[in-house]
Amino acid sequence: MTTKMVIFHSVNGTSGTRTRTPQCQYSPIIIQAMLEPFFSPDRIAIIGASTDPNKMGSNVIRNLIDFGFNGEIYPVNRHALEIAGLRCYPSVKEIPGKADLAIIIIPAPGVPGVLKECGEVGIRHVIIQSGGFSETGPEGAEREKVLQEIAREYRIRVLGPNCIGVIDTHTPLNTTFVLGDPPKGDIGFVSQSGAVVVSVMDWAQSKGIGFSRIATMGNQMDVSAMETMQAVAGYPNTGVITTYIEGISDGRKFLQVAKEIALKKPFLALKGGQSEKGADAVSSHTGALSGSMEAWEAAFRKAGVLQVNNMQEMFDQARALAWQPLPAGKRVAILTNAGGFGILAVDALQKYGLEMAPLTGQTKDWLRKRIPSAGSVNNPVDIVAGTGPATYALALDALLADETVDAVIVIQAPQDWFRQSSVAEVIGEGASLYRKPVITCLMGKKDAEETLALLHKRRIPNVVFPERAASILAVMDKRRQWLDAMKQAGELAAESAPEPPADAARLITEGNWSGLAAAYGIPLPPQKTAIGVDEAVKAAGEIGYPVAMKMLSKKITHKSDVGGIQLHLNSDKDVRTAWNEIGEAAKKAGADMQGVLIQKMLQGGQEVIIGIKQDDQFGGLVVFGTGGTEVELYKDVCTAVAPLNTVEAGRLIDATVAGRKLAGWRSMPPRDRKTVTDILIRMSHIALNHPEIAEMEMNPLYVLEDGNGAFAVDIRGRASNN
Amino acid sequence: MTTKMVIFHSVNGTSGTRTRTPQCQYSPIIIQAMLEPFFSPDRIAIIGASTDPNKMGSNVIRNLIDFGFNGEIYPVNRHALEIAGLRCYPSVKEIPGKADLAIIIIPAPGVPGVLKECGEVGIRHVIIQSGGFSETGPEGAEREKVLQEIAREYRIRVLGPNCIGVIDTHTPLNTTFVLGDPPKGDIGFVSQSGAVVVSVMDWAQSKGIGFSRIATMGNQMDVSAMETMQAVAGYPNTGVITTYIEGISDGRKFLQVAKEIALKKPFLALKGGQSEKGADAVSSHTGALSGSMEAWEAAFRKAGVLQVNNMQEMFDQARALAWQPLPAGKRVAILTNAGGFGILAVDALQKYGLEMAPLTGQTKDWLRKRIPSAGSVNNPVDIVAGTGPATYALALDALLADETVDAVIVIQAPQDWFRQSSVAEVIGEGASLYRKPVITCLMGKKDAEETLALLHKRRIPNVVFPERAASILAVMDKRRQWLDAMKQAGELAAESAPEPPADAARLITEGNWSGLAAAYGIPLPPQKTAIGVDEAVKAAGEIGYPVAMKMLSKKITHKSDVGGIQLHLNSDKDVRTAWNEIGEAAKKAGADMQGVLIQKMLQGGQEVIIGIKQDDQFGGLVVFGTGGTEVELYKDVCTAVAPLNTVEAGRLIDATVAGRKLAGWRSMPPRDRKTVTDILIRMSHIALNHPEIAEMEMNPLYVLEDGNGAFAVDIRGRASNN
Repeated sequence: MTTKMVIFHSVNGTSGTRTRTPQCQYSPIIIQAMLEPFFSPDRIAIIGASTDPNKMGSNVIRNLIDFGFNGEIYPVNRHALEIAGLRCYPSVKEIPGKADLAIIIIPAPGVPGVLKECGEVGIRHVIIQSGGFSETGPEGAEREKVLQEIAREYRIRVLGPNCIGVIDTHTPLNTTFVLGDPPKGDIGFVSQSGAVVVSVMDWAQSKGIGFSRIATMGNQMDVSAMETMQAVAGYPNTGVITTYIEGISDGRKFLQVAKEIALKKPFLALKGGQSEKGADAVSSHTGALSGSMEAWEAAFRKAGVLQVNNMQEMFDQARALAWQPLPAGKRVAILTNAGGFGILAVDALQKYGLEMAPLTGQTKDWLRKRIPSAGSVNNPVDIVAGTGPATYALALDALLADETVDAVIVIQAPQDWFRQSSVAEVIGEGASLYRKPVITCLMGKKDAEETLALLHKRRIPNVVFPERAASILAVMDKRRQWLDAMKQAGELAAESAPEPPADAARLITEGNWSGLAAAYGIPLPPQKTAIGVDEAVKAAGEIGYPVAMKMLSKKITHKSDVGGIQLHLNSDKDVRTAWNEIGEAAKKAGADMQGVLIQKMLQGGQEVIIGIKQDDQFGGLVVFGTGGTEVELYKDVCTAVAPLNTVEAGRLIDATVAGRKLAGWRSMPPRDRKTVTDILIRMSHIALNHPEIAEMEMNPLYVLEDGNGAFAVDIRGRASNN
Repeated sequence: MTTKMVIFHSVNGTSGTRTRTPQCQYSPIIIQAMLEPFFSPDRIAIIGASTDPNKMGSNVIRNLIDFGFNGEIYPVNRHALEIAGLRCYPSVKEIPGKADLAIIIIPAPGVPGVLKECGEVGIRHVIIQSGGFSETGPEGAEREKVLQEIAREYRIRVLGPNCIGVIDTHTPLNTTFVLGDPPKGDIGFVSQSGAVVVSVMDWAQSKGIGFSRIATMGNQMDVSAMETMQAVAGYPNTGVITTYIEGISDGRKFLQVAKEIALKKPFLALKGGQSEKGADAVSSHTGALSGSMEAWEAAFRKAGVLQVNNMQEMFDQARALAWQPLPAGKRVAILTNAGGFGILAVDALQKYGLEMAPLTGQTKDWLRKRIPSAGSVNNPVDIVAGTGPATYALALDALLADETVDAVIVIQAPQDWFRQSSVAEVIGEGASLYRKPVITCLMGKKDAEETLALLHKRRIPNVVFPERAASILAVMDKRRQWLDAMKQAGELAAESAPEPPADAARLITEGNWSGLAAAYGIPLPPQKTAIGVDEAVKAAGEIGYPVAMKMLSKKITHKSDVGGIQLHLNSDKDVRTAWNEIGEAAKKAGADMQGVLIQKMLQGGQEVIIGIKQDDQFGGLVVFGTGGTEVELYKDVCTAVAPLNTVEAGRLIDATVAGRKLAGWRSMPPRDRKTVTDILIRMSHIALNHPEIAEMEMNPLYVLEDGNGAFAVDIRGRASNN
């Protein structure tokens, strides 16, 4: 094995076809117990241990020893007697007393043989760090299958292959061959890329970012990403869990596991690979608007996973979530010695949707007597240049005691009248008297090291410029909101899911989407089909004017694009004219016109779109937003993962402008949001019950005034085998 | 003067009422020459020099000496014979040989007296660092007026009061009393906040961020922000200019100065105070949509000033713009040794609107022979773990030589096979052979210091994580685009501005906005007013069906909200019904109905909004976007500062979804963009010619197919005295 072996990057974690081993069906506690030997073994065999410092087998031994692992280490190497002062064994079979963890780091062709030997001597936990398996192509994939069979036969749990293993700073254990000792702390980190782990460990030094457990997933031939996350998140030393993830094999399982974790501990994720691959052919707005990226974002939202934009943000926020309590609301107070930074902090709070705490009159009066007259007792509270730890102590206490304040950002621009470290000390002490988050931005470089040490000791995160404090508080607030929503959902009476109608399969096969919607209890406007002009006139008369006329054609999806829809027909004459015009349009578009639909023309409602589609990773998705023919242009839509409960449907509605408009806007009355919520839930169950429906949407769903209902005016769909 | 004097923050730079001294009318070169003594004096008098280390007058002397000023320093203090080893003078009058710059740092009440003395001995440049003037309230403002009179009488140029003065790293000169020696370099920085300067200087150490000149504006009683910017930007040692700005006194002057600067050097601005104050009463969509923040953004866009979101971004980008050439296009190549970071870089490029360079087949073939087989020759080019400086040198050269590549991001995840500094060296050398920007992300901490030194020597910016490289390239691309647009605008034949019509004043007074628009050559649809139902029927017949009927009322601005508009009227009968219904609606709304407008009902067009309004800082603004009654809900609008030329109008159109839709979308034909452009220009001149029009808008402007024109269907306005 040369140093050029490629093990840094799991290339096929995105494969959706891998067969899962049955273990991932166990409960979180059992999974955690099952994986425990990966993180806290007593006796480790290193198969591929080496004396050659250019080989990774040498680095693994070095890291194990240097990181302070205090169990037994058994190097395995046919050609050495001793490695790094340890007795070396020609094979695992020769090791006296069974190892409880083996690390394999030999070239790929030899791996099956030694894995079998591990099985034979009863080793049940193996980390395969070697590359050369499914990440390299079909030949490697075959090799990996062989490993899988051996693992199954001997009931070995395997992490990898093609990973850098795990680190537990508390055991302590470091099975990797890469440089760097991660600082001890409470952040758990699960990464789909080994290189990302290396960089993060390197960068975390001196930032007050410490880790509990770090694990890389590799090819996930046995132990899955979700199991790894459970083992890291369930660890008592983990306060917050972070992950860099590119793809997963089972989206639904991920949702379940992630939510279980997020209910207990903050869970942050950086999703790599957000760029869209060539989009599949889609025939609905829903399909065009809800790609893989939107599905991931929806999944994260549903599971309470906080999605971040980059590495720095992830660990900034992880540190704050691990260290500080969640704010009870959005109202932030700013304490600063420099007006300019107060202003920048206010701008950032506004950008992130937080609010300025108003402060009580009492707080202001109290502050007025204690800060320089040139300062400001209004938020941002400006204690101006020249103030030191005493003023900071007094002002911070006043702000934290104020009931209108949910969180405080403390800023100190560099100055040379007082030691910055003293300010750090009073903030640390002062903040500990309250259960409200405090983020500091002490900017001076002069005694920065001591300042940071004092802040970190008190678990106060410090940021370089105040803008970042606002982004941290925004993420904290997002978590609070999600936990509140979960609590609210938990308090709801159990919601019954609509039963699939008996004739659903037939309706889907026939492409009778209106029929399917109606069968699911979704209201349609009064409507009749007509195959001749006289029949159309008769239907219009029965329904009552005004009516709309719509071309019936299986071939044409967007009928309005070809002139296949005529609205506002007020008389028999209008109906006859429309019939002729639609007939002409059908001819021009080469449509297979099967007649027309005459539909009651509803008036004065709001048009929204509700769509469902199937996502490769997460299954049924629901899309809601502003309807119409230009949905893709304006993109006022949001996606959620099916099924929805009332709380989730409400959050989906609120995420769009369409939703805010439903509440009433200017002269527009509040609309029947309750019916929209109900239809969203019903549609989500259609998505869940019928994965064979690739896409289905109502555009528009016509929403009338509150209490008057909502009607699916136009419904189309596509079964996946069509 | 105690150490608690407030001098960090100019509180009333946002005042729009300050009377400007006439000097700012000079040309940039004269202004630069005029202000030169502030930055490169030969003999400096320090009025308020002190031996007491707690006083700022002591710190000023310390900074002057420590920073290496090599001219004469004359401390002025009535009570000392010697300060810091320098002979001390009781007043400026006693100094032998005239000082060419005086710094005043004594308590406010004494300032007028010593300023007068400066005038009497012929000192023409004075920095007043003392606070206690207009920033403190009316009393201080009175004191500042006295200073202004003295300055005028003796023709003294005054910087401040209430500022920390200037720094020139090349002279070298540091007139401030604050801690920190800024590193020498080519970034000019003009700040409205002293505290921000202090923090930035402190933070810039070791980041490869060096400054040419730094200036704080203070209260701008004489030398304005714009003059200061000109003096800093015009300095040959300045490669890029940065500013932290909260408010300015003369928006139009700022636009002119900023654009002059930006045409020569990159100009970055961080705008503090973006939160909206209580919005003024507005009666149009335009007013509601274009607040002070939108005005600033529009001004920055017009002047080619690159707006940044925070301090870190500003200097990240300033460094890159000072060091690297602009990319010729949007196509970026990524070179990495770790797949995960390649993916994150791709995500970031997509987020910032950049493109992946496709790479030629030749490049790929060449690379294929030179990088490990496990790597990837497609962009991102992954040379995988284990590669070192030789592979980086070869691959970087291939990418820079590739004609499909406009810029390269080079990533190296930490590794321990090669010295990272060697990779830095080959990148520095290799990049210097081409005129394409190269941004690195060498992540290792191990020999980070040497790595950074080598990169900075070669003027290659390095970032911590790859996402930031993408944001840097995006800003570079934005500057390139603006310069291209300026070039394009320069190549246009001079555009003639429409003359104000003779009866404009009358039309405005009468509130006859349609008349004004028509007088400016803006097309209206065929229309007639009618004051009775029979007259309405007659008008409709003459115009030809279908028609629309609109209530005429001065009181009701949003007529559709009260049912004052009826569309799609097809017959005399329809007109009569509509007349009755609008009459009812008017009664219900308490409207002063003066009859109706009968208007040709245009069909099949796209509805856009064009509005103008007056902004306190920048004067006339133009708003363009998607029209309709729900403009404020969907906010698909963009703002520009009047007047517009063809290129600027085009950029305004392109910035919105409405603009993209004008080009044709799905079954919709391309619209008459040329007429829209023309109307935008005409409207911008209305805004410019008639500042007494507070707001005026056409919503909708009805845009027909290309060649068929666009018609202002509904126009309303408000004069500022109404």
